[in-house]
Amino acid sequence: VKPVVVTDPPRTDEALVAALGEYGVATLGEAMGRTGYLGPHLRPIYPGARLAGTAVPVVCWPGDNLMIHVAIEQTRPGDVLVVTTSSPSRDGFFGELFATALAARGVVGLVTETGVRDTAELTEMRFPVWAPAVSAQGTVKATAGSVNLPVTIGGVVIEPGDVIVADDDGVVCVPRAHAGEVSVAAGEREAKEARNRERFKAGELGLDVYGLRPLLERLGVEYRPYETP
Amino acid sequence: VKPVVVTDPPRTDEALVAALGEYGVATLGEAMGRTGYLGPHLRPIYPGARLAGTAVPVVCWPGDNLMIHVAIEQTRPGDVLVVTTSSPSRDGFFGELFATALAARGVVGLVTETGVRDTAELTEMRFPVWAPAVSAQGTVKATAGSVNLPVTIGGVVIEPGDVIVADDDGVVCVPRAHAGEVSVAAGEREAKEARNRERFKAGELGLDVYGLRPLLERLGVEYRPYETP
Amino acid sequence: VKPVVVTDPPRTDEALVAALGEYGVATLGEAMGRTGYLGPHLRPIYPGARLAGTAVPVVCWPGDNLMIHVAIEQTRPGDVLVVTTSSPSRDGFFGELFATALAARGVVGLVTETGVRDTAELTEMRFPVWAPAVSAQGTVKATAGSVNLPVTIGGVVIEPGDVIVADDDGVVCVPRAHAGEVSVAAGEREAKEARNRERFKAGELGLDVYGLRPLLERLGVEYRPYETP
Amino acid sequence: VKPVVVTDPPRTDEALVAALGEYGVATLGEAMGRTGYLGPHLRPIYPGARLAGTAVPVVCWPGDNLMIHVAIEQTRPGDVLVVTTSSPSRDGFFGELFATALAARGVVGLVTETGVRDTAELTEMRFPVWAPAVSAQGTVKATAGSVNLPVTIGGVVIEPGDVIVADDDGVVCVPRAHAGEVSVAAGEREAKEARNRERFKAGELGLDVYGLRPLLERLGVEYRPYETP
Amino acid sequence: VKPVVVTDPPRTDEALVAALGEYGVATLGEAMGRTGYLGPHLRPIYPGARLAGTAVPVVCWPGDNLMIHVAIEQTRPGDVLVVTTSSPSRDGFFGELFATALAARGVVGLVTETGVRDTAELTEMRFPVWAPAVSAQGTVKATAGSVNLPVTIGGVVIEPGDVIVADDDGVVCVPRAHAGEVSVAAGEREAKEARNRERFKAGELGLDVYGLRPLLERLGVEYRPYETP
Amino acid sequence: VKPVVVTDPPRTDEALVAALGEYGVATLGEAMGRTGYLGPHLRPIYPGARLAGTAVPVVCWPGDNLMIHVAIEQTRPGDVLVVTTSSPSRDGFFGELFATALAARGVVGLVTETGVRDTAELTEMRFPVWAPAVSAQGTVKATAGSVNLPVTIGGVVIEPGDVIVADDDGVVCVPRAHAGEVSVAAGEREAKEARNRERFKAGELGLDVYGLRPLLERLGVEYRPYETP
Repeated sequence: VKPVVVTDPPRTDEALVAALGEYGVATLGEAMGRTGYLGPHLRPIYPGARLAGTAVPVVCWPGDNLMIHVAIEQTRPGDVLVVTTSSPSRDGFFGELFATALAARGVVGLVTETGVRDTAELTEMRFPVWAPAVSAQGTVKATAGSVNLPVTIGGVVIEPGDVIVADDDGVVCVPRAHAGEVSVAAGEREAKEARNRERFKAGELGLDVYGLRPLLERLGVEYRPYETP
Repeated sequence: VKPVVVTDPPRTDEALVAALGEYGVATLGEAMGRTGYLGPHLRPIYPGARLAGTAVPVVCWPGDNLMIHVAIEQTRPGDVLVVTTSSPSRDGFFGELFATALAARGVVGLVTETGVRDTAELTEMRFPVWAPAVSAQGTVKATAGSVNLPVTIGGVVIEPGDVIVADDDGVVCVPRAHAGEVSVAAGEREAKEARNRERFKAGELGLDVYGLRPLLERLGVEYRPYETP
Repeated sequence: VKPVVVTDPPRTDEALVAALGEYGVATLGEAMGRTGYLGPHLRPIYPGARLAGTAVPVVCWPGDNLMIHVAIEQTRPGDVLVVTTSSPSRDGFFGELFATALAARGVVGLVTETGVRDTAELTEMRFPVWAPAVSAQGTVKATAGSVNLPVTIGGVVIEPGDVIVADDDGVVCVPRAHAGEVSVAAGEREAKEARNRERFKAGELGLDVYGLRPLLERLGVEYRPYETP
Repeated sequence: VKPVVVTDPPRTDEALVAALGEYGVATLGEAMGRTGYLGPHLRPIYPGARLAGTAVPVVCWPGDNLMIHVAIEQTRPGDVLVVTTSSPSRDGFFGELFATALAARGVVGLVTETGVRDTAELTEMRFPVWAPAVSAQGTVKATAGSVNLPVTIGGVVIEPGDVIVADDDGVVCVPRAHAGEVSVAAGEREAKEARNRERFKAGELGLDVYGLRPLLERLGVEYRPYETP
Repeated sequence: VKPVVVTDPPRTDEALVAALGEYGVATLGEAMGRTGYLGPHLRPIYPGARLAGTAVPVVCWPGDNLMIHVAIEQTRPGDVLVVTTSSPSRDGFFGELFATALAARGVVGLVTETGVRDTAELTEMRFPVWAPAVSAQGTVKATAGSVNLPVTIGGVVIEPGDVIVADDDGVVCVPRAHAGEVSVAAGEREAKEARNRERFKAGELGLDVYGLRPLLERLGVEYRPYETP
Repeated sequence: VKPVVVTDPPRTDEALVAALGEYGVATLGEAMGRTGYLGPHLRPIYPGARLAGTAVPVVCWPGDNLMIHVAIEQTRPGDVLVVTTSSPSRDGFFGELFATALAARGVVGLVTETGVRDTAELTEMRFPVWAPAVSAQGTVKATAGSVNLPVTIGGVVIEPGDVIVADDDGVVCVPRAHAGEVSVAAGEREAKEARNRERFKAGELGLDVYGLRPLLERLGVEYRPYETP
């Protein structure tokens, strides 16, 4: 891990972040061709948590949260801290004091590959966090890592300034360079889904709405009446 | 996987389904000799979710929800969709549009070995779902599977028309052929538990309620006063 | 597993248990030098669950809850049942009838390495339970184990009479011999955190509050302005 | 679990078992339409292990190998013991003494969902075993299960007398009713693969051998020269 | 974690260690009443590895092997290094240079909860290692832990000077205080197994060798001829 | 997933690949500051497997190996196929026919996040493969993915033409842009390790070789003679 802190990376435009934040995580993933989703292991610490913001990626050493302290100095209002470790580590890297510091700076939430603690207090503060684990296990501050270098979670590369959107379905990353087109595509998808929703409510079948019957025939799907064994 | 759709399998009688739905999952599992439970990995997407219905088993290919579309056409009011995959796949096979279509047909819920998405919307609709994961990762519609052939979850074989009961403790399958006797046995067990509950409330011990003291003696359990190490 | 039941082990003093129960699990773990935490796999069955009590450690055979019946007879008001198995077993060892019996004896909750069931009823009773899994799978009563011999969970040794504190962050064990000093250290830590909380609220950085800048220099952390790739 | 032992179930014809044993596990799975494979968790205890035989399915209680003793009495030469548990249990259910007893009866090997032990001795005896774990942890003999009732492993139902074939790739189950047709299909597949092998050796591409180029076009796969980022 | 190094703990007598090393891990676990086994996750890095020695327990911080360096100074000929971490960490804590240093001091092997690397070289050196993972991921030397305080692996407490025996079946710990009686019990068990082996070879059944038929009757096991479904 | 095939990406110079291939995976990871290692889940299918080559990254859909066929056309002598999936999938994506085709083109091996099959044949061919699982489960050819777009494994980004080195310790990726400097650093590290090896052989301690005693003092490590408990 290079002990590097990149300062002042550009962020995605605030209005674009807000526009993307109008959509659900699943819609955004579909709008990006089924990419960008960070994986089912990242769960919100309370139901109904939501956020949209710009990524400040951090790499910590296992069991060591030193670089979160370093990262906080690099945050701006509207940012989201995105914490990973150089190898898997589910200790409680983050708690209520960090959230207090971040909230004071206008940071809108945390996405982390580590454990978090003080979840009762974080929930009361309504500081939204997505994490794979809750853990009270403490960490040290001894080894360097990086801030604002790209990180990957679940096979998705997250660059500083990319858009992070998170809800009950998990977390998605929209690259800064494609934020505009993804916002448009998400809007189109949502409109199409709204039309389909009406058809489904009226009792139409997906087989017809999506025109799947020819495919079934091509695949040789056989319909066969039930026979008593 | 045979690309087969079995049409019009018989369902367990509606009244029997309703009767079984009066019991908890744990009671039904005990009434079947500690069998029928699909495993601790299937969790409800919201606390307090409950369902009882008749199984429509589906086999999908990993990352591919085509056969859910096919299955919906085969559902009747009172059915439960039971989705498995030919190998493990936790992507988001199912979301709010599917639930809208199923609710329009009177289907009472979903049990799936895959991930689900749109959990906020599903919760708001009170469409009950049991699944091992929440995932926003999208799926394709390209490969055939089966509908209404038997499937297995957690070592339990589920035939079309079997009774599925689910609550906060998970999901149980009651075979159609044994639904009547299981209902009777569950009633007896519940009555017995009610009597025992009163004894426990009164401070009696399980050792006496269940007559376990002779067993302890046979097993050579030794009672020994505490000694300071 | 020795089939032994140790009777009447000493418990940590009630007032000390109450004092420790005032602190969160994370604070107590830190006060013990980042030890004593039983691990992130133990989750409360409902949010906001809390307990503090004295441990009654139990070892069961996999799929067999006989020794829980034995253990109940050994409990006193203020105790916490701490259940492990001789090898991993996530079946539903514990449910509402056991909780009824324990509540009748003044036992304040359960920490278990096994699955639990009847979680809806347990939640309604507000009987707090920490467990790695919810499972309706039933158990037998056939094989002996131990009560009030030391057990280990997550690498932590739990002796009978030790203090168990649990909240949304998980479970911590405070050894009886150190309960007094840990209580003092936790108080000091909490006071220090309160002071730091005010500084963070005022916008101070952890880098300064904890004096970390010289460490960063020693580690060779390099600050580098963002460059367009 | 029903405490039932089914006696004298029919076995697949010996010659058919031998014929199926000529094929690899992967070939047989393909010949059955990509079904019948018990999953990647079952590994041989030594490289190069191979077997083909008729299944004697057993259900044990976790941590309890009583029913293996019961099952041995039901075995005939050419059988394979197939052991599962009513819930997951990786203890060492099986070791060298059992293998000695089975070898004395002409049983050709073991497939188990549990752990095994004495692997050095089993390897020396060349008694082939497929298991998910090696464990020295001992078991008890206290709780009943079943022999020769159907079991499921990895979603595959195994009936008594079905054909089990296993090699370095894992384990496959060929249902007794389809053993003949599967043998024919496997032979055809192997012949076709032999022809394709020659084409691949000669440098032909799968895209041409399997005629995949039109599919790529239909899927909109775009070929694009590399550009320096 | 207390930053403590305990010097010169007593070791189990050399002759007793040698005597225990004559038995397999499974035999020793049985001789201790099915306790002492560290779990199926610890695997030898090459088949046929074996060791018997006295434990030098080490606690490291995740991703940090500093305390292994500290521990080496505390070793004597005949010792086994037993390495754990304060929370799970599978990085490559140990490689060929460490093995060179340990071999130079007469240390007979390593048991570790972490990853190891240079396995090709370790195998060539025939330096036996049991570990849950092979990993090339490097570690730092920054945070303190302990040497010769008790540790736990798989629920088993390991004190300095206890006997560690390991083979293809995994690792067992025999407490120093019980080494003599365990050695005797293991000898008795092995003798009994030798007698049973002859009976099994002669075709006797475990049902008779162990006298299990009355138990089956008590459990209500029903024998039922096969019926065509 | 974008259905894109990038053609003719530049490869790292052949001589540099050969030079890097002289070093072990652990040495290369250290030479890159403890980065580049793909994780402990990727294991060689036979002991002693080794490779060094240039990456051809592939993204497949779960349960679908279509894009491996597409990728083969893009390979050159000296390449390594690096296969990932858009979500986890451990089916048998790759077997002996693919290896035959790749060997015919001079491709030196495979690194894959999926399962592989025909491992006996692959071992006999000495075609080296690193994978997390062996699985006979077959796949389809129905859904598009990408070839020669960057992929990530274990948090490491792999670009087409990067150097892949693999041995018994796993797999490391050396970025094309840094191949030269990493080769130099690895040489220096190896030379230093050779010097240290001699010191360790002579009985020196790592505490002195690496000058760690002042650190122990700073960390407050306390040496304390053993006391009988």
